[in-house]
Amino acid sequence: MRIVALAGGIGGARFLRGLRAAAPEAEITVIGNTGDDISLFGLRVCPDLDTVMYTLGGGINEEQGWGRRDESFTVKEELLEYGVGPSWFGLGDRDFATHIVRTQMLAAGYRLSAVTEALCDRWRPGVRLIPMTDDQVETHVVVDDPERGRRAIHFQEWWVRLRAALPAVSIAPVGADEAKPAPGVLKAIEAADVVLFPPSNPVVSIGTILSIPGIKDAVERKTVVGVSPIIGGAPVRGMADACLTAIGVETSAQAVAEHYGADLLDGWLVDEADEGVAVEGVEVRSRPLLMSDPEATEAIARAALDLAGELAQ
Amino acid sequence: MRIVALAGGIGGARFLRGLRAAAPEAEITVIGNTGDDISLFGLRVCPDLDTVMYTLGGGINEEQGWGRRDESFTVKEELLEYGVGPSWFGLGDRDFATHIVRTQMLAAGYRLSAVTEALCDRWRPGVRLIPMTDDQVETHVVVDDPERGRRAIHFQEWWVRLRAALPAVSIAPVGADEAKPAPGVLKAIEAADVVLFPPSNPVVSIGTILSIPGIKDAVERKTVVGVSPIIGGAPVRGMADACLTAIGVETSAQAVAEHYGADLLDGWLVDEADEGVAVEGVEVRSRPLLMSDPEATEAIARAALDLAGELAQ
Repeated sequence: MRIVALAGGIGGARFLRGLRAAAPEAEITVIGNTGDDISLFGLRVCPDLDTVMYTLGGGINEEQGWGRRDESFTVKEELLEYGVGPSWFGLGDRDFATHIVRTQMLAAGYRLSAVTEALCDRWRPGVRLIPMTDDQVETHVVVDDPERGRRAIHFQEWWVRLRAALPAVSIAPVGADEAKPAPGVLKAIEAADVVLFPPSNPVVSIGTILSIPGIKDAVERKTVVGVSPIIGGAPVRGMADACLTAIGVETSAQAVAEHYGADLLDGWLVDEADEGVAVEGVEVRSRPLLMSDPEATEAIARAALDLAGELAQ
Repeated sequence: MRIVALAGGIGGARFLRGLRAAAPEAEITVIGNTGDDISLFGLRVCPDLDTVMYTLGGGINEEQGWGRRDESFTVKEELLEYGVGPSWFGLGDRDFATHIVRTQMLAAGYRLSAVTEALCDRWRPGVRLIPMTDDQVETHVVVDDPERGRRAIHFQEWWVRLRAALPAVSIAPVGADEAKPAPGVLKAIEAADVVLFPPSNPVVSIGTILSIPGIKDAVERKTVVGVSPIIGGAPVRGMADACLTAIGVETSAQAVAEHYGADLLDGWLVDEADEGVAVEGVEVRSRPLLMSDPEATEAIARAALDLAGELAQ
């Protein structure tokens, strides 16, 4: 079986670990969001790709969901001694090595997809991880800053520094219009038996991946099953509600399914708390969706695959 | 009093600490060797500038003489996990921060002299530290490699990886011919009451600095006192003998003074073990030259200044 999953960071990575356990024989291709990428200290940081890589490769900080296990912060502290920030982005020493290798390879002319493959040589995540694009796409958020007026800031500044406390006027993946899917992305989707949307952020993760010209069209031709990131009107984790509000979508399993739409979505898994969700043309199933441990996560992934199997018949 | 000192790494830095103690009221400008600089992991590393900065700023690893105190090596170990070396160059986590700041500033268009000034804002070394040049000059060493034949390698590869075990056929500061002294270098020399040569390597430290067009001429017009890096026919530390052999100079206090020559040198401090050294046109004094502790080092610096004072009369 060939599976393609579009993935953001923490929630997506955890789901993928369950998926790998649920379908150990499957060939899984993960198309990773790079809209959160940011250059810090002259180094290229790809938070979502790294979260997937570290989670599936056994290097993740489990409690935190991002960053490396047994991490130290000497480099960051020293940078702050030089007065060089930002202080609000938590780059650890082990993590720095990843960004140094990536930046050096990019500077040598390798594309991000080739760099990601090289990094995965170490982590052996058990899936093929491809960035959505090799082109630079950065999610920017327009906010009404009480001090500085309306302005666009990098997604990470909004998400990590401001913790999305300043309402977003709009959110846009800058550069997406001109971007091309990375080599292998469209081919993997075309060859897939099923495309899965993990419970990742529908706006700044799945939405950003789908904004790359060509990807949405390719996905629409496939059997697509999504797992709702919203349970009982609240995001399972993170601040997806702030993103949904910005694009005028209610924070509910129902509204997110309608936002994706029946052209895209064939099946939709919602939590038991959201029983009753109904979208014409979409097969909705309810079951426990909390990824509380590896077994629960594996069962969710299996349910998504089972639904896809039914829909493909 | 205005003092200019040309300095390499460990020996130079220790001497400078003594000099600062010996002349607390003096305005000291240090012209630092950058021929040892190397790009590693996409980062610009300036070993001699950093050794001076860390030593005078209180951040040096005292036992080792280079690198930071309380250092850890997490980033380097992680890079090696990615298969990214070299493994033979010891960059610690604290040290990495320095190179990250430097590289980011250079990429932003700042010159090395401006970057060095910015880094010194943190370390407050109590001297003005200027790189010899803002242009790229790299000391290359020609060796007869038993496996790969005659070839030129970077100084650091010869010095650190091979520990100078492969005899040098020749040593050259590549790029020096085209390089210009960094802003402030010539002005500092012109304004100096005395120019000191600390017991740094006469070939790859002092020699490299003097190879930048304009510096040697400016120094020659000044009262110059040198401190012999050779005691009783052996380098005080390091492997200066391997460098001297490569340029056909004997490893002795006498031969190094003759190599500098009376046009350049006015005074020459040698160790008591080298009493009898005599060079026409150079005032030679003998005294203990082992920089065994801060007090001994300060006394050596004071002796150099006293000799300069006499010569200037």
